[in-house]
Amino acid sequence: MNKSDRISGVLAPVVTPFDHDLRPDAKRLIRHCRWLVDNDCGLAVFGTNSEANSMSVAEKIELLEQLVEAGLPPERMMPGTGTCALTDTVELTRSAVNSGCAGVLMLPPFYYKEVSDDGLYRSYAEVIERVGDSRLKIYLYHIPPIAQVPIRPTLIERLLRDYPAAIAGVKDSSGDWDNTRLMLEQFQPDGFDVFCGSESFLLAVLRLGGRGSITATANVNPSPIARLYRDFERDDADAQQAALDRIRNIFQGYVMIPGMKAVIAHALDDPDWARVRPPLDELDSESRTRLIDTLAEAGFDLAGADKLC
Amino acid sequence: MNKSDRISGVLAPVVTPFDHDLRPDAKRLIRHCRWLVDNDCGLAVFGTNSEANSMSVAEKIELLEQLVEAGLPPERMMPGTGTCALTDTVELTRSAVNSGCAGVLMLPPFYYKEVSDDGLYRSYAEVIERVGDSRLKIYLYHIPPIAQVPIRPTLIERLLRDYPAAIAGVKDSSGDWDNTRLMLEQFQPDGFDVFCGSESFLLAVLRLGGRGSITATANVNPSPIARLYRDFERDDADAQQAALDRIRNIFQGYVMIPGMKAVIAHALDDPDWARVRPPLDELDSESRTRLIDTLAEAGFDLAGADKLC
Repeated sequence: MNKSDRISGVLAPVVTPFDHDLRPDAKRLIRHCRWLVDNDCGLAVFGTNSEANSMSVAEKIELLEQLVEAGLPPERMMPGTGTCALTDTVELTRSAVNSGCAGVLMLPPFYYKEVSDDGLYRSYAEVIERVGDSRLKIYLYHIPPIAQVPIRPTLIERLLRDYPAAIAGVKDSSGDWDNTRLMLEQFQPDGFDVFCGSESFLLAVLRLGGRGSITATANVNPSPIARLYRDFERDDADAQQAALDRIRNIFQGYVMIPGMKAVIAHALDDPDWARVRPPLDELDSESRTRLIDTLAEAGFDLAGADKLC
Repeated sequence: MNKSDRISGVLAPVVTPFDHDLRPDAKRLIRHCRWLVDNDCGLAVFGTNSEANSMSVAEKIELLEQLVEAGLPPERMMPGTGTCALTDTVELTRSAVNSGCAGVLMLPPFYYKEVSDDGLYRSYAEVIERVGDSRLKIYLYHIPPIAQVPIRPTLIERLLRDYPAAIAGVKDSSGDWDNTRLMLEQFQPDGFDVFCGSESFLLAVLRLGGRGSITATANVNPSPIARLYRDFERDDADAQQAALDRIRNIFQGYVMIPGMKAVIAHALDDPDWARVRPPLDELDSESRTRLIDTLAEAGFDLAGADKLC
């Protein structure tokens, strides 16, 4: 595969609906994924915002199969497959590759803290060797605020050197622009595709040759974010970025996952969408009302939400 | 069950041997468990020191079945069953209960950080309701340095109030004596059994009515630690504690899991025992030699290690 053929653009770490028994709700998920794809967003299912680590490997494999069977395009998918356990990560990654997914977004094993680069190198290397499939494209998932296990440039360098075909890029959710810029300057020229973990950095990343963003807010604001990806060389790009930032900043005043689910539930008049698996909590009704009112005041297109999903 | 009949004493979070393909090695594990039980230690298999979160649920269920089939006593077992995913935790806990284990040691879901007490409460409550078995005895696993998700006294209070039969106690691996003492004073009188996460606190815990210790070093120094549990009211208890501390302090100068595995490998002249799953690393040969020499100088009974396992 030519490196320029690889997945790019804006992807949503797709929020996962749960039914009354807290089971993943494939029907609602499929509708939401269709709406995201129709709005030019790729599907980073099983990310942090998907409550992926609150689900078993079997639940995720079944959901992925249901999405593909429903006709959603695996070439627009980058499922999260990194877990604490080597064998779980291998099983889930193999399933994603066999489903034809464009790539996988892979957390480092995140239970043990202060592990060495050597240990993380062997974690990724073991997965690559065990999956043993030339279609495998790994996007390293750097999210130190949550995983608490960083992916350092020194690790990327070793992995890229030894597995240049399998190591395809990174999602940088550090929120640290210096780190993102370092990756863009040091690794992107070699075809290591940098995605920022928030659309707040989208324009800056694209201007330095990055490939896009995998961002929570794409679950609720997909079309404007995808538009900036297309328009980043136009004169109004900075104004578009500022408009995205305004919406993003509103969501960041709440816990992101229940906040987005509350907005979807409201837009669809479907309270079931608000449900989260423990240990997360739904927004309380006061926060929910305040979030929705604040978005409306900011001109967020809740009026067009009947098109949502 | 009378609360005083519950499991007590010294338990080892049993280190897990892996074969050349990094598969759990049931045969070596069974031998090690037999030796621990023969030395008066219970079996907290699938703890942090067992690399439990580096294994899949299926691997752990199979290992537990193999241990029980081999005749190891489930009434002396407290497997770790807490994972990030509700469904995984339920499945593994159910398996432990059905195997007749004395209790389960349950981490909170540890991927998301800064979660609320409400969210953690619902996590534990959902597991209790779903397992739905009066034999279930949960020991809450408080290990903030690694899980990064603490179990606060306010949470314990709510869980104990609503599930007094299922919530049996805690393993406090905070290393914070003030926290352990608070639990001993506030909850132990109600039959909430406090185990310290290091034998460094064993004597102090027993003197305040605690039930014992679940401690890494029991993997390599079981008999002297179990002896202090029996002898804690004797005149030489402080001297015994001091002797335990000397050995513990030596191990704490190394990464604990590969350190203990290196010592077992050396004692048994069985290099396979040293293997760890990534992201952990084995000790390098220099550290290994230094650890073993330091232990020998401290009079640690490596000479009697032919009895090990």
